[in-house]
Amino acid sequence: MSRGYNLAIVGATGAVGEEMFKTLSQREFPVKSLRAFASKRSEGKTIEFKGEKIKVENLASASFENIDIALFSAGASISREFSPQFARKGAVVIDNSSAFRMEKDVPLVVPEVNPHSVEKHRGIIANPNCSTIQLVVAINPLHKRARIKRMVISTFQSVSGTGREAIIELRTQTEDFLNGRQLTSQVYPHQIAFNLLPHIGSFLSSGYTEEEMKLVNETRKIMEDDSIKVNATCVRVPVFISHSETVTLETEKPLSVEEVRQILSNSQGVIVEDNPEKNIYPLPVNAAGKDEVFVGRIRKDESAQNSISMWIVADNLRKGAALNAVQIAELLVKKGLV
Amino acid sequence: MSRGYNLAIVGATGAVGEEMFKTLSQREFPVKSLRAFASKRSEGKTIEFKGEKIKVENLASASFENIDIALFSAGASISREFSPQFARKGAVVIDNSSAFRMEKDVPLVVPEVNPHSVEKHRGIIANPNCSTIQLVVAINPLHKRARIKRMVISTFQSVSGTGREAIIELRTQTEDFLNGRQLTSQVYPHQIAFNLLPHIGSFLSSGYTEEEMKLVNETRKIMEDDSIKVNATCVRVPVFISHSETVTLETEKPLSVEEVRQILSNSQGVIVEDNPEKNIYPLPVNAAGKDEVFVGRIRKDESAQNSISMWIVADNLRKGAALNAVQIAELLVKKGLV
Repeated sequence: MSRGYNLAIVGATGAVGEEMFKTLSQREFPVKSLRAFASKRSEGKTIEFKGEKIKVENLASASFENIDIALFSAGASISREFSPQFARKGAVVIDNSSAFRMEKDVPLVVPEVNPHSVEKHRGIIANPNCSTIQLVVAINPLHKRARIKRMVISTFQSVSGTGREAIIELRTQTEDFLNGRQLTSQVYPHQIAFNLLPHIGSFLSSGYTEEEMKLVNETRKIMEDDSIKVNATCVRVPVFISHSETVTLETEKPLSVEEVRQILSNSQGVIVEDNPEKNIYPLPVNAAGKDEVFVGRIRKDESAQNSISMWIVADNLRKGAALNAVQIAELLVKKGLV
Repeated sequence: MSRGYNLAIVGATGAVGEEMFKTLSQREFPVKSLRAFASKRSEGKTIEFKGEKIKVENLASASFENIDIALFSAGASISREFSPQFARKGAVVIDNSSAFRMEKDVPLVVPEVNPHSVEKHRGIIANPNCSTIQLVVAINPLHKRARIKRMVISTFQSVSGTGREAIIELRTQTEDFLNGRQLTSQVYPHQIAFNLLPHIGSFLSSGYTEEEMKLVNETRKIMEDDSIKVNATCVRVPVFISHSETVTLETEKPLSVEEVRQILSNSQGVIVEDNPEKNIYPLPVNAAGKDEVFVGRIRKDESAQNSISMWIVADNLRKGAALNAVQIAELLVKKGLV
């Protein structure tokens, strides 16, 4: 491999892990060495990266010496146990789990929104939740111009957000349904094929789910404004890749639809797809495999003052996870922080 | 057949038409005679009703004498042409299309909400749009108690709302996808299998769709309150039956979550399914084939004063169409208006 950095991917065999290898390669990240970690179950598997075969190591028994950047996507409990160990050995961990996101000395970073925040960390930088990343990329430019006071959000989240086993469950249940066989659910509490689950993450005593509260709390932390009010309902839908969101946002200053289109057209990482007359609006199947956040159905909400509605779609595995993590790594390189 | 009324079903071979036959039978509506009308294409087909075979007649060339009640579900242009003809021959038309809904002298009726409104008509009574019916059944009891000022709604609408050919399109595309074949779209402008379309009905110059404006305008007419503000985004989802809705509503008077649960538990046509700890919440696949409107995920919205969020699911072919039409017919019988 070329000159560059010693990298590790933890959770290398998962849906996001796989996307991380692809993203590092596509973006030609300066990789000197690349190690792959997963659970014992995957030990010895090989992953191809730029024509080389990388052997998957068992995280539990491996050593973590000489790693510059570790990209974690193996769930919160693995992160809680191993991220600090990697950090102690000198790596900067970019963690895709929820384990450290709300901790005060852990930056929660979306490079288009708060790149400055990567600078102060204790060895761990958190990658936000998928549904939050695509939201803030699209709304932060509007917030900067007109100050968002309140948002009402409904999400339509694909099964790949749950992981590889959920992709298999949707596919298997769909096949079973079409063949008249009995459906079984293992990953989700109910059938997901041809169904909707208003349930992502655990339920809290308030009646909200963890996923819904991530949209509230992570948005405020990334946008550095605790006064933004957020109401969210998160729904799992039978789609493989890409999360979609309806967002109705009230701003302090008025924004016309034309202004919103213009602001977003000039915003980094955003593509406006908004020509309803020609049936052009963001679609999950079109966003899959793309890096950008797609925004359409931009219109004035007549039910409140200074209010705008829109439809935001992005690939949850890419911008919602792997790409954002790699962009954080690029930011560390660019700022000479690694 | 028994003593009772001379009925006609127009659009007898469609998805809603089929459900109308089932509903009349299940509810033991007093049918003296029952005629079935459709386009020339379906002429001569037979439909079974309570063990008898009914021959489908060609609407364009049939006579409409001696019909007491005609249930129309054949689209707005057919309704516009034929409903007045049926009415002139003495039938009361209950029309499931959007053709007459907003006309001043046409009642728009949901029996749980505005039963009194059936009394004054010129021979045509309109059945509201599917997504509106389930909404008003669930929210009107809250409006009566606390006065709803504003609602933000996102819908997740099944393909059966489009009709039988859309059910086939979802199934065919899904099979083609799973078998690695090229997908073709005929009913929808884009793939619906494993995808979402933020597009139901035609687009208006405001950027809203007709379907979204139905939620605004029909809700106000049925609830007889033009001051209710409604913001809606309507999305087609790859589900066969049942429409789902996220609703965040702001009221004049405060309502606690417990009050909402109690009010709705005592409301006609509503079933509260709200025990998140046990993964109990309304699901499209569970609501399919049921008469009631299911409400769950009831919780306080902390982003605004006096605001509540909920998740509303109902079978769009039944309560959203056929059942509501038959209930209107029952109301006419009960009030001696036919």
